Amino acid sequence: MGGASDRSARRAVVARRILGIDPGSLVTGWGIVESIENAISHVACGTIATAGAQAQGARLSRIYRGIQQIIVRYHPDGVSLEKVFFARNPQSALKLGQARGVALLAAAENQLDVYEYSSNEIKSAVVGYGHATKEQVQKMVASLLHVSEKMAADAADALAAAVCHVHRQAFQARLMEAAPDWRPAMRRRRSP
Amino acid sequence: MGGASDRSARRAVVARRILGIDPGSLVTGWGIVESIENAISHVACGTIATAGAQAQGARLSRIYRGIQQIIVRYHPDGVSLEKVFFARNPQSALKLGQARGVALLAAAENQLDVYEYSSNEIKSAVVGYGHATKEQVQKMVASLLHVSEKMAADAADALAAAVCHVHRQAFQARLMEAAPDWRPAMRRRRSP
Repeated sequence: MGGASDRSARRAVVARRILGIDPGSLVTGWGIVESIENAISHVACGTIATAGAQAQGARLSRIYRGIQQIIVRYHPDGVSLEKVFFARNPQSALKLGQARGVALLAAAENQLDVYEYSSNEIKSAVVGYGHATKEQVQKMVASLLHVSEKMAADAADALAAAVCHVHRQAFQARLMEAAPDWRPAMRRRRSP
Repeated sequence: MGGASDRSARRAVVARRILGIDPGSLVTGWGIVESIENAISHVACGTIATAGAQAQGARLSRIYRGIQQIIVRYHPDGVSLEKVFFARNPQSALKLGQARGVALLAAAENQLDVYEYSSNEIKSAVVGYGHATKEQVQKMVASLLHVSEKMAADAADALAAAVCHVHRQAFQARLMEAAPDWRPAMRRRRSP
């Protein structure tokens, strides 16, 4: 999230569970990872499917309530999701936005900080380069988190967003240890 | 909404209050109109403004809670809003979608049916032709609903959506009286 601060840098060391979300109007992927020291592990993942025949309000309710239930069950410390820079067309952007809106609402209503990363950042964190295919992400997420059973592509994307955030947190924590006075340039408060 | 049915046609005669919503990531307009027999009157209107500096989750919370409060306070029988066919670009469609998503969620969580009309249908219902300007809509809504104080453009747009739905309901109710067996062609259930 834009509003990263000293507080979130301190929290980075403490935070344990991250909920990754991959919102979609038909299928919303989700995944929880846990980080302890330098180890990262898979807690749970899945998808919230909304039957195509349902009215859009009912679908959004299902996504919202589904995420609420996941938050209540797994107590994540933060939410990570992919930034959206472009979409196929305004119609699909609108529908994606509607699903994304209720996901962000569920996070906000539970006082969870939201972290957003570009698709490139997420793929780089998981596969090692920014232009990996969906299948490569799926494979690498499963391998990285030692998940042997087949996971849905949307759940893998959600886990990838969560993994990306954990990597970033770990990186920042190490930086803070090495150079406590260091601040990323982008975080400097500009004088008005 | 697409799923209009006999039930909603029957409800049309009973329903009294319609909440119009004009969602936006910065300003969400809302307006309640009441219809008794052939008369339509203004109940309340306003805007939910979300300061630009807030995080998007906090903004979406504000919109969601604002609409929840309006529903609790005014007990509308249904929600009317503009269909979105295009947007300036995918980024603005995404942001509009997020605001729209939480508005639709608030309606769904309160078991309110949602009715959507195109911009042309709304303008035609209020001004008489589909290409009216924002100012013309604002003026005609104020005149139609006998509101003398100045209203925000977004509130006027929300009221216009509500007025459009009331007109449609009244039209359908009259049709039902005149020809009880008549059904609009678009509602006929197609055989698969």
